[in-house]
Amino acid sequence: ADVAKGRAKAVQCQACHGMDGVAKIPEAPNLAGQNEDYLVKALKDFKSGARQNDMMSLVAKPLSEDDIANLAAFYHSLGR
Amino acid sequence: ADVAKGRAKAVQCQACHGMDGVAKIPEAPNLAGQNEDYLVKALKDFKSGARQNDMMSLVAKPLSEDDIANLAAFYHSLGR
Repeated sequence: ADVAKGRAKAVQCQACHGMDGVAKIPEAPNLAGQNEDYLVKALKDFKSGARQNDMMSLVAKPLSEDDIANLAAFYHSLGR
Repeated sequence: ADVAKGRAKAVQCQACHGMDGVAKIPEAPNLAGQNEDYLVKALKDFKSGARQNDMMSLVAKPLSEDDIANLAAFYHSLGR
């Protein structure tokens, strides 16, 4: 996974989750330092529909496997 | 919500999420300082079945509304 590519892709996540991984709205989770395996599973589940959320189901749909790995690596890399 | 009651209830969460809110297994998320609204929704969704996870679907089922509020307040209170 490529943290730099994850950071670039995270521009579309920042309104809710921040580029610092600290959520900007109360209903979104903080992601900074979150476990990478957990983040990969969350994005895959939103993409597949196994997990549902109005916003996340929409934005996760077009993500590739690489996008998901890179985003998870980036948010994990921010540390807690 | 009652943080002390949440701490007491969290004894059943600690194997995976820790009493410090730092996950003890890679597939579980860190919860320390997580947004309270997000944690309440996660537990309600696991309880209702809207969100599925082998472990969480099982352990969330018997939680009362108060348990959920107290657990969310406790893990939020730990800070990031």
